[in-house]
Amino acid sequence: MEIQDNEVHSSLWCGWIRALLERFNANIVEFARETKNLGQEDPRRIIHSLKVGLAITLISLFYYFEPLYDGFGVSAMWAVMTVVSVFELSVGATLSRGVNRAVATFLSATLAFGAHHLAVLSGEESEPVFIGLFVFLIAGMVTFARFFPRMKERYDYGLLIFILTFCLISVSGYRDDEVLDMVYSRISTIVIGGLTAVIVCVGICPVWAGDDLSKLVAANIEKLGVFLEGFGVEVFRLSGEGESRKAASLQGFESIIDTITEEESLANFARWEPGHGPFRIRLPWKQYLKIGSLTRECDCRIESLNGYLSYGIQTPPEIGGKIQELSTKMSTESGKALKELDLAIRTTTAPSSAGIYIIKSKNATENIKSLFNSTLSKDTPPQEIVLATTVISLLVDVVSCTEKIAESVYVLASHARFKSEEHQPERPKSPDEEAPKQGDSIISISHQVITV
Amino acid sequence: MEIQDNEVHSSLWCGWIRALLERFNANIVEFARETKNLGQEDPRRIIHSLKVGLAITLISLFYYFEPLYDGFGVSAMWAVMTVVSVFELSVGATLSRGVNRAVATFLSATLAFGAHHLAVLSGEESEPVFIGLFVFLIAGMVTFARFFPRMKERYDYGLLIFILTFCLISVSGYRDDEVLDMVYSRISTIVIGGLTAVIVCVGICPVWAGDDLSKLVAANIEKLGVFLEGFGVEVFRLSGEGESRKAASLQGFESIIDTITEEESLANFARWEPGHGPFRIRLPWKQYLKIGSLTRECDCRIESLNGYLSYGIQTPPEIGGKIQELSTKMSTESGKALKELDLAIRTTTAPSSAGIYIIKSKNATENIKSLFNSTLSKDTPPQEIVLATTVISLLVDVVSCTEKIAESVYVLASHARFKSEEHQPERPKSPDEEAPKQGDSIISISHQVITV
Repeated sequence: MEIQDNEVHSSLWCGWIRALLERFNANIVEFARETKNLGQEDPRRIIHSLKVGLAITLISLFYYFEPLYDGFGVSAMWAVMTVVSVFELSVGATLSRGVNRAVATFLSATLAFGAHHLAVLSGEESEPVFIGLFVFLIAGMVTFARFFPRMKERYDYGLLIFILTFCLISVSGYRDDEVLDMVYSRISTIVIGGLTAVIVCVGICPVWAGDDLSKLVAANIEKLGVFLEGFGVEVFRLSGEGESRKAASLQGFESIIDTITEEESLANFARWEPGHGPFRIRLPWKQYLKIGSLTRECDCRIESLNGYLSYGIQTPPEIGGKIQELSTKMSTESGKALKELDLAIRTTTAPSSAGIYIIKSKNATENIKSLFNSTLSKDTPPQEIVLATTVISLLVDVVSCTEKIAESVYVLASHARFKSEEHQPERPKSPDEEAPKQGDSIISISHQVITV
Repeated sequence: MEIQDNEVHSSLWCGWIRALLERFNANIVEFARETKNLGQEDPRRIIHSLKVGLAITLISLFYYFEPLYDGFGVSAMWAVMTVVSVFELSVGATLSRGVNRAVATFLSATLAFGAHHLAVLSGEESEPVFIGLFVFLIAGMVTFARFFPRMKERYDYGLLIFILTFCLISVSGYRDDEVLDMVYSRISTIVIGGLTAVIVCVGICPVWAGDDLSKLVAANIEKLGVFLEGFGVEVFRLSGEGESRKAASLQGFESIIDTITEEESLANFARWEPGHGPFRIRLPWKQYLKIGSLTRECDCRIESLNGYLSYGIQTPPEIGGKIQELSTKMSTESGKALKELDLAIRTTTAPSSAGIYIIKSKNATENIKSLFNSTLSKDTPPQEIVLATTVISLLVDVVSCTEKIAESVYVLASHARFKSEEHQPERPKSPDEEAPKQGDSIISISHQVITV
């Protein structure tokens, strides 16, 4: 009996341990998979981690071997802290935090030294009262300053460091000359730490927030372009067949509205970056933000459009073919224009044929307008064109949004001095490519009001 | 001559100084105005600034009078630093940072103590090599961990503090017992600083991120409701009169897409907050985010709709009056429903009549559908209904979006146990209010597909 009991027990234990090990293994595998994905998605993450490790090790060992001031305490710590809290993925973010930290420390330390001196002058009894008052006033006022939108955007970290430094120095309670020493050591260690972070960040495979911003804006434009190309082909062909047969390019349509957060933070870092790589001057991040916001506006219209893919869209038989041809043209040509703009932003090359595509889609718009005004006979039952009309009206909106995006990209290309088209790799010309009409410049046709 | 020259000089100087003073004065006035606005807009900002001042003064003076450990150095600093960097506007943000900082310091200090011990055991010569290796590995790995979305969302600050503490302790280069002292003093000062911050933050006029999230979501719903009420009245009446006569409620329509950033960060803080005030349980922040995202979807449709306000919208004379009446009803009833939902979220009361409004606007949708299918004769020239059709199709989309929002708010009301309607202040009943049809529950009618 006892042996049997033991056997039961041990088999229960075995099962339990095996289950635990299996779950543990599954977790490890899952974790490894996720880690691999993160690294493969963007190998700069791995490089960044190694860079941070390197910078911190450098500064740590420097102080480990040469404690420049009196022992570990204040000095080494500030340098290590500065590297840890200043080093960010992109150059812009690192510069922004580094400059904020250095300037705030300098200003605040100067002010704190003055305040400390004043408090000491006031006599031993009233000293703590004065110090308490100063700390309260400065902490309160600077905290309030963090609510100013302009300050919050660029100098939030600096303001935090300002409060911190002021409090640390004014409550130190030492004699004046010691405080001066402390001010000096704090500023110099922060400069050393900040420089280490900036040098490693810029020196080894730098990541520019401006490049990421440009890629993100381009990717969003591309998504819309791919959708429109697919939509043009599918929308009227699909009539009545429902969701199941959507083209692959339409299945994956995801809203790009969520990218606004990332775009804004990248633009905020990009403004700190000097000219680099293809950008001989500083990146015109405001123009990128403008393009991003126009793209989201277009995305809004496209989401409305997307809702109509699942309806069976009827067209009156006598002009159905013509409507289909023209609206397909409106959609696909806009799609091509967007893809061309995407390429232009990605390769920082002035867009060459986006204007032609837009003119073609605008011509299709004009044609569909006159089709509705002339060809539609009194015999067309209105019910037959209700949905087609809605889809076409939305398409007209999309075409005009596309045009606005194109205009902004042309402005960007001239601001950021994109390479001109001569240097662009030859693009295979499709046989049905029409020459643009004379005088139909993308800018000149931009303010026409289009009504179906 | 000399006198004249001097006069000219002095008058130039006077002018210059006066101009400078005037500009300075203008800046001061502008700054004062902006400060006043910031304070008036949200008086909690002033209270928060005073709270931060108070907390920092308390902790500073505490250490000023009683330097608990050996001198100023390590100990007082950590407490002050903790208060400065943990204290945020909302309770959730403060708790999140406080808990992150405390837990990360504890875990990291333990690990660093072990690493330091190991390095010392390895002998005097290889000690720096081991320490450098540990620092490099930990800094690199934890930096990489910050890229995991789940970690970034909740524990980013903790991971930063983990690296910081590990480096500071492992490079300290002292003997084991001194390191143990240091670990102890660092942890205890951080706990004291964190507690001070949390107590002041929660104890004096606490600001709950959950409340702000709820207000923001409600305000967005309200904006759409106000627009739809105005739109319903204006859209067909305005025919041909252009932008100039838009109702006031339509002039101010601003996109709510930008609020996504704020919504996400508030939700991220709200998840750290315990139940409070009207929320006997923790705030269902995920449901708020869902409502927010549905509201933005609806906003997208409404922006498309907004574009049609400037067109002159023709309706065929024989059914124009009917179309106008029904589409006005669709729009205004949806608007009323949204305003009711806004009120429900604001007052944490289960919405009472939103369902009725939605049923009314859905009935109007059904009626307009049959109007198009039956009443429109073959004599209606299709051009006349092109724009009206588009506007109505978009309105149908908006009605169905409104319904989705309403459903989510009903789910929220049951999850968050909103007060039931009995406790709600009596709402004046408008004379044209119909009773809902039997069985027309908001949930049961939710999955009908609407086509015009």
